[in-house]
Amino acid sequence: MYIDTLLSEADWLITEEDYHPEKSQFYETLFTLANGYVGARGSLEQGSQTGSPGTYFAGVYDPTPVFFTELANAPNWLNVKIVANNESIELEKGRILEYKRTLDMKKGLLTQIFRWEGAKGQITRFEDYRLVHLNYKHVALLKGVIVPENYDGPFVVKSGLNGYVFNTGVIEQLLIKHFKLTEYEDREAEGVYLEMKSRLSGISVGEASKLKLSVPSERSVEIDVDKITEVLTFEAKKGQAYEFEKYVTFYTSRDVEDVKFHTLKELNTRVDQGSEVLLREHVSAWEQKWLDADVKIHGDEVAQRSLRFNIFHLIQSANEDDDRVSIPAKALHGEGYRGHIFWDTEIFMLPFFIYTNPRAARSLLMYRYHNLDAARENARIQGYKGAQFPWESADTGLETTPKELGNPLTGETVRIWTGEEEHHIVADVAYAVDHYYVATGDEQFLLKYGAEILLETARFWASRVQYDDRKKAYVIKKVIGPDEFHEHVDNNIYTNYMAKWNISKALEYIDRLKQKHTDSWDKLKKKIVLSSREIREWKTIANNLYLPYDEKTKLYEEFEGYFKLKEIDIS
Amino acid sequence: MYIDTLLSEADWLITEEDYHPEKSQFYETLFTLANGYVGARGSLEQGSQTGSPGTYFAGVYDPTPVFFTELANAPNWLNVKIVANNESIELEKGRILEYKRTLDMKKGLLTQIFRWEGAKGQITRFEDYRLVHLNYKHVALLKGVIVPENYDGPFVVKSGLNGYVFNTGVIEQLLIKHFKLTEYEDREAEGVYLEMKSRLSGISVGEASKLKLSVPSERSVEIDVDKITEVLTFEAKKGQAYEFEKYVTFYTSRDVEDVKFHTLKELNTRVDQGSEVLLREHVSAWEQKWLDADVKIHGDEVAQRSLRFNIFHLIQSANEDDDRVSIPAKALHGEGYRGHIFWDTEIFMLPFFIYTNPRAARSLLMYRYHNLDAARENARIQGYKGAQFPWESADTGLETTPKELGNPLTGETVRIWTGEEEHHIVADVAYAVDHYYVATGDEQFLLKYGAEILLETARFWASRVQYDDRKKAYVIKKVIGPDEFHEHVDNNIYTNYMAKWNISKALEYIDRLKQKHTDSWDKLKKKIVLSSREIREWKTIANNLYLPYDEKTKLYEEFEGYFKLKEIDIS
Repeated sequence: MYIDTLLSEADWLITEEDYHPEKSQFYETLFTLANGYVGARGSLEQGSQTGSPGTYFAGVYDPTPVFFTELANAPNWLNVKIVANNESIELEKGRILEYKRTLDMKKGLLTQIFRWEGAKGQITRFEDYRLVHLNYKHVALLKGVIVPENYDGPFVVKSGLNGYVFNTGVIEQLLIKHFKLTEYEDREAEGVYLEMKSRLSGISVGEASKLKLSVPSERSVEIDVDKITEVLTFEAKKGQAYEFEKYVTFYTSRDVEDVKFHTLKELNTRVDQGSEVLLREHVSAWEQKWLDADVKIHGDEVAQRSLRFNIFHLIQSANEDDDRVSIPAKALHGEGYRGHIFWDTEIFMLPFFIYTNPRAARSLLMYRYHNLDAARENARIQGYKGAQFPWESADTGLETTPKELGNPLTGETVRIWTGEEEHHIVADVAYAVDHYYVATGDEQFLLKYGAEILLETARFWASRVQYDDRKKAYVIKKVIGPDEFHEHVDNNIYTNYMAKWNISKALEYIDRLKQKHTDSWDKLKKKIVLSSREIREWKTIANNLYLPYDEKTKLYEEFEGYFKLKEIDIS
Repeated sequence: MYIDTLLSEADWLITEEDYHPEKSQFYETLFTLANGYVGARGSLEQGSQTGSPGTYFAGVYDPTPVFFTELANAPNWLNVKIVANNESIELEKGRILEYKRTLDMKKGLLTQIFRWEGAKGQITRFEDYRLVHLNYKHVALLKGVIVPENYDGPFVVKSGLNGYVFNTGVIEQLLIKHFKLTEYEDREAEGVYLEMKSRLSGISVGEASKLKLSVPSERSVEIDVDKITEVLTFEAKKGQAYEFEKYVTFYTSRDVEDVKFHTLKELNTRVDQGSEVLLREHVSAWEQKWLDADVKIHGDEVAQRSLRFNIFHLIQSANEDDDRVSIPAKALHGEGYRGHIFWDTEIFMLPFFIYTNPRAARSLLMYRYHNLDAARENARIQGYKGAQFPWESADTGLETTPKELGNPLTGETVRIWTGEEEHHIVADVAYAVDHYYVATGDEQFLLKYGAEILLETARFWASRVQYDDRKKAYVIKKVIGPDEFHEHVDNNIYTNYMAKWNISKALEYIDRLKQKHTDSWDKLKKKIVLSSREIREWKTIANNLYLPYDEKTKLYEEFEGYFKLKEIDIS
């Protein structure tokens, strides 16, 4: 009727055809909309008893038990509820006559359509789309129509900013409330404003919203704990379509000093611009992204959609304008891994950005560079030299891997060793720097930042290895490789290979700098206090780093003793 | 105007004269209304950003980290919110022209009066009272008037049952959600219903409510996560007083099998009865309580009010009809000590009930009797005989004292020893049994229950003491006495004295039973397998239990070595 005309061709769409409350959280993750600055899980506008709404701002972490810190769930601005002729529309009750949600990956829109019959036989049609603006990173928009199909009566549309939200999953059954209300205000014609502050990290998040209807209405504002809601009421006539728009803006004290001022100013600007312009600019921003990144598959629509689905979520998750954040393992899509950043970003995600959006790739690497001092501190704590990037990284760049996971109700715990042993991350970051530089030729990045990472990581490895008299080679003991099911192993092939690569590559870059960029080399050498003796040592190590390779079988052993493990038939 | 005419004389009243959001939690505790079955903290009907609403059903515990189990915060039924001519009444905003809350201890009512001016200059007067019914333990009522003093316009009154509530304070910054939604229903003319189940203990709590107005209104129902709200709308005229009533009923699966059926039936019955009758019967039930329990002080109103305040909260906290629950250290007034039961109940609270409401006293002691098997199990776990009542007790009667308290964010922990060492609780329970029997002469209780407690606790002490060759006496080592600032002490005078008393008293009762109640004695002796040899042993111990007494100074030493402790000047 209205929304369907917006949608792109089928091979751009992911669709939820029926409403299954038990699948709420699954679709919330699939349907997350983000722009690298903020992510909003694909929860229902109407709310539900089974969903887990989540709003995460990149870099807005707050300390949490066990996991050190986590992306803090911020006020939920999705909320749009309707009371139609004194009947609240609740998909869990009544009868759903039609239901469809569609993620349009081409345009970066999530749409919802439903027709719902309440207990009194009233049938209401609802259609809307939402967007998290790709250009204006501090803006989101919901827009739709509501049609009372077979009844007249008073219509109430409510649009909330709800800060009564929690992080879940840290400890079973426990919820963590990271944000504390600092201010709320009814700005009348300017909408409503809510500001909260993260309890321990002290980051303020301001959100403003304004609800507009296509017909004149009475306006009031409701307050609940940590929540402010605009309420518009009008007399609806049977069969008529009523349009609503919800403009939302947000800033955090990571971005600006006067959060409230900027949030409200942005809201005024965007409301003045109007939803048509916002939509057009959003869609055209996506168009540009797809021009750079789309991969076409002919003859297999499922594969086409699946590939685009992955590309879509990658594009959404990076923010080229903020080089102090990176992409968490679960991006801005949920609370898994508490929003921490792993090697996945450099090894699995970064290549995509290197070839489609090098500015974003550079930002991701700059996140590591900004945390280089913390990586040095991590190395020092563990008794090594150079820079040791943490297995799990968040805001400070210090190690945030939990030491132990457990159920406090049963007392059962599992010791987690990855933070202490999964050292290959250090070489992975170095590898990413080289990869980026080779692909982009970004000399300025290399000289100012990249080379320092390459050298400090090489230095880490030189301090990490030990000489084995029997093997007459340098070995790396007690690590966890990418196969995390084997802990405390010696000479993991991936780790050793990458360590060797890291040191060798550093030596290569030293040669290049010495030859082509003498000034930079002198400066860097001085900054990190690197002597010729240390460089000679690296060479010796690189040339004699043990790789578990069997000449006869031509096989690399995953780690020492792997081939002697008992075969287990798991079929 | 309306509410003040209800109130008793000044020496029955506790008053909050101004609204200070920062004192919300203080007044919530002072103004808790309860009836031994349920307690509701004195939170504002309108909600607030600073309060901690709490609804606790005696015996409804759910497992929690660190503290084993806790009274689970149940759906909050206090909620009554008003939107007056499109302006939500929020005491935190606008201007408060008048404000007073009064706890009327004589009648068991909490009243609120305020006049509030919103941003548009609209002045609204609100007055109401609430009660948690003392006779009908499954019923609560709010009733009041609202007056738009200087404006006309649409009035919205909202009455919610809100299950989106949490326990706090277990671990700083963490909230625990004990209840999960199982059902909600709009019963239309019959009001609304909400049912939730505690996650691990599996107890269902059903709550129903019905909002009534003195004028015709439009009705709708709002749903939010774990929340259902009745909404009544009408056109209000300047200067007119509009009356509202909110009837609330509740049952748990501890009481009845069909929670929903009973909750709704009770609601219908009480709505039919009407608020006048409910109020009258409630006030007359309180009148009866005060006839039994009031202590009059002449010439000192502060002392009079203070004493009544204590009596009031004691009366509120006992439930003579449920002998499977006892009164937690913080009663049903909050979450301190997680709703656990300590020696405080037997030593400090029970005497009040023994002399004013022996049925309630008997129920409190029966709670211990029902947990006698658990006390036997506690003794077995710690390597003793007989019955060892736990230092902290909850639903199962097993020890629920935390072993360690800590801040998971800083990793700092404090070891808690009371559960392992504060053994005087065992004699305290025995003492309470004797006290009750001596005061009431309740022979049936003694023979069926009390004697068994006295003997099994004596048996515990006989296994707890050890013979000291040097002292030529029985000693009790490594305990915590009532002075909890000294741990692992030997021969604490209170503990030793009470242990001696406990064994001696058991021997006295054995003699009495032998002489007067041969049948009961034979049955009991057989049930607990008590031999003559064991009784002889008890005599030896009782006669030779070491009491740290100094003949010269005529002083009892608190514990061995106490007199040698360094004097500290804390002035």
